[in-house]
Amino acid sequence: MKNRPIGIFDSGLGGLTAVKELLNILPNENIIYFGDTGRVPYGSKSRDTILKYAIQDIEFLKSMNVKMIIAACGTVSSIIGGSNVNIDIPFTGVVEPTAMAASASTKNGKIGIIGTTATIKSGAYKHALKKINSSFNVFEQDCPMFVPLVENGFIKDNDKAALIIAEKYLYSLREKGIDTLILGCTHYPIIKKLISKVMGPTVKLIDSGSETALFAANLLYSLDYISTRNTKGVCSFFVSDTVEGFSKTASLFLGRNINQDVKIVDIDSYTI
Amino acid sequence: MKNRPIGIFDSGLGGLTAVKELLNILPNENIIYFGDTGRVPYGSKSRDTILKYAIQDIEFLKSMNVKMIIAACGTVSSIIGGSNVNIDIPFTGVVEPTAMAASASTKNGKIGIIGTTATIKSGAYKHALKKINSSFNVFEQDCPMFVPLVENGFIKDNDKAALIIAEKYLYSLREKGIDTLILGCTHYPIIKKLISKVMGPTVKLIDSGSETALFAANLLYSLDYISTRNTKGVCSFFVSDTVEGFSKTASLFLGRNINQDVKIVDIDSYTI
Repeated sequence: MKNRPIGIFDSGLGGLTAVKELLNILPNENIIYFGDTGRVPYGSKSRDTILKYAIQDIEFLKSMNVKMIIAACGTVSSIIGGSNVNIDIPFTGVVEPTAMAASASTKNGKIGIIGTTATIKSGAYKHALKKINSSFNVFEQDCPMFVPLVENGFIKDNDKAALIIAEKYLYSLREKGIDTLILGCTHYPIIKKLISKVMGPTVKLIDSGSETALFAANLLYSLDYISTRNTKGVCSFFVSDTVEGFSKTASLFLGRNINQDVKIVDIDSYTI
Repeated sequence: MKNRPIGIFDSGLGGLTAVKELLNILPNENIIYFGDTGRVPYGSKSRDTILKYAIQDIEFLKSMNVKMIIAACGTVSSIIGGSNVNIDIPFTGVVEPTAMAASASTKNGKIGIIGTTATIKSGAYKHALKKINSSFNVFEQDCPMFVPLVENGFIKDNDKAALIIAEKYLYSLREKGIDTLILGCTHYPIIKKLISKVMGPTVKLIDSGSETALFAANLLYSLDYISTRNTKGVCSFFVSDTVEGFSKTASLFLGRNINQDVKIVDIDSYTI
C-alpha cells in the first residue's frame, strides 16, 4: 500500500498548483495526475454534470491503484461534499483544508471566498467556515473570467484588462474589510500577485492547492501510508484531450519544466 | 421529407445567432437545436476531440429525423471540412457560405478572419477564401477570450476590459488595411458593435451565422425540401448540461424570448 501512487485530479491543469506543493513536501511519492482537458471547464456547468464527471475521474484514478485521491479542483470539491458519492480509499477535496487554514489566518473574523460560479453557488466553503466558527463573517464572490484569463495568458500583475476585471469582481469584498481571502480555485494562484494588488497588502490570500497538499501529506503520515522509497518519485500525467502543448502549459502551473510524456485517457468509458 | 425539422448544433449557445436568422427567413420550418453545453467550449480543444464531439452531435440530430444539418459552430465547421466524416443528408458548416459572402464584400481583396484557436489553426477559412480567389490577401487572428467575454456578459461596446482585449487581438488586422472581417465564430455577433468600434467604420463585418442560415435556406429551396406548413414552425432546444438559466442566456443569442422547455441529452451515448 505504502508505495502506491497518490492520485490527483482537476477539470484541467489548475490542479498542478497542488502537485507543485506536494512535490515539495513529499518528493519520494509517485503521483498520478489526471486533467479532464477534454471537458474543461467544470466551474460554469451544473451540479449533476460536475458530479458525473468527478465520478468518472475518480474511477480512472482508482483503476490506477492509487492509495489516496485528491480532488485538486475547487468546483469538484464543493459539489462532492454535499453528495453521497462513496469513495472507499482516503480522499480529500480542497474545501475543508482551505477553510481550516483561513480560520487560522483571520484576525477580525471577516473572510472572503472567490471561486468559479459552481463553487460559490454550492456554498461549500461558507458552510465549512461556519462549521469551524459560526461567528465568522463570510463574503462570497464568483469570478468566472479568472480561469479564461489564466488559461489565455492574461496573468501579469500589470495586465490592464485583467486588473479591470479583477477590480469589478473584488471591490465589494475589499469594501467589506476582510483580512483573509480564500483562492477557492486551483487556477487562481497563477494570478495571486494581481489579486493581491487589487485587495491590498493587509489581506492574506489562502491558496487552496497548497493547503490541501499539506493536509494530504499529514493524512498520509497519520495513516502510515508514506512511501518507503528513498529515491525521487515519478509523476505521471494523463489528460482527456490533446497532449499537444501540454508541457508548456503544465510547466506554468507546476513551476518547473516537465520532461516526461503525457497520456490520453478515454474518460467517458469510466463509470462506477 | 419536406416537413421534417432542420437540425442545428453548436458547442454551446452561440449557434442560436444562426437560428435567429433562420427563423427570420423560414418562419414555418420546425427547428431542432442542440447545444453541447456539457462540454463547451470546443475552440480550445484538439482536432480529434472536436471531431469526436461533432460526430456525436450529428448522430443525435440524425436520430431526431432531421432533413438537413447545420453546424452553426466555426470550430466544428473548420475541423469537419478537412475530415472524412460522411454525413448522408444535406449538410453545411459555416466556413464556405461565410467565405463566399466575404469574397462578395471585399473591394481591396484584403480579408481578415477571427475565430477560436482551433478554427484559426485549421486554416479552413483561409483555404476556402483562396479557393474562391487565390489572389486574396488573407490575415488570421485567434481571439480565445472573446467566447468567455460573451458568456460572462462583457458585451457592451464601451466595456473597458473587453475593449482592451479586442484592441490587443485586432490591431494588427486593422494595420493590414483589411476592408472585410469574417466573424468566424457564432458567438461574435453579440459583440459586433464592440469589434466594429475597434476596427473602424470602413471594415465590413461578415456574420458567419447569418450567412450560413441564408445559404441553408437557399439549399433547401433548391432541393425542394421547404416545408409545406402554412403556420409557424416549432423550435425545440436540447442541451447536454443544465437547463437552468437556459432561457435567459438563449434569449440573448436568439434576440427574442424563449418560452418553451429545453431538454437534456446524454450526448456521450451517441456514436456512429
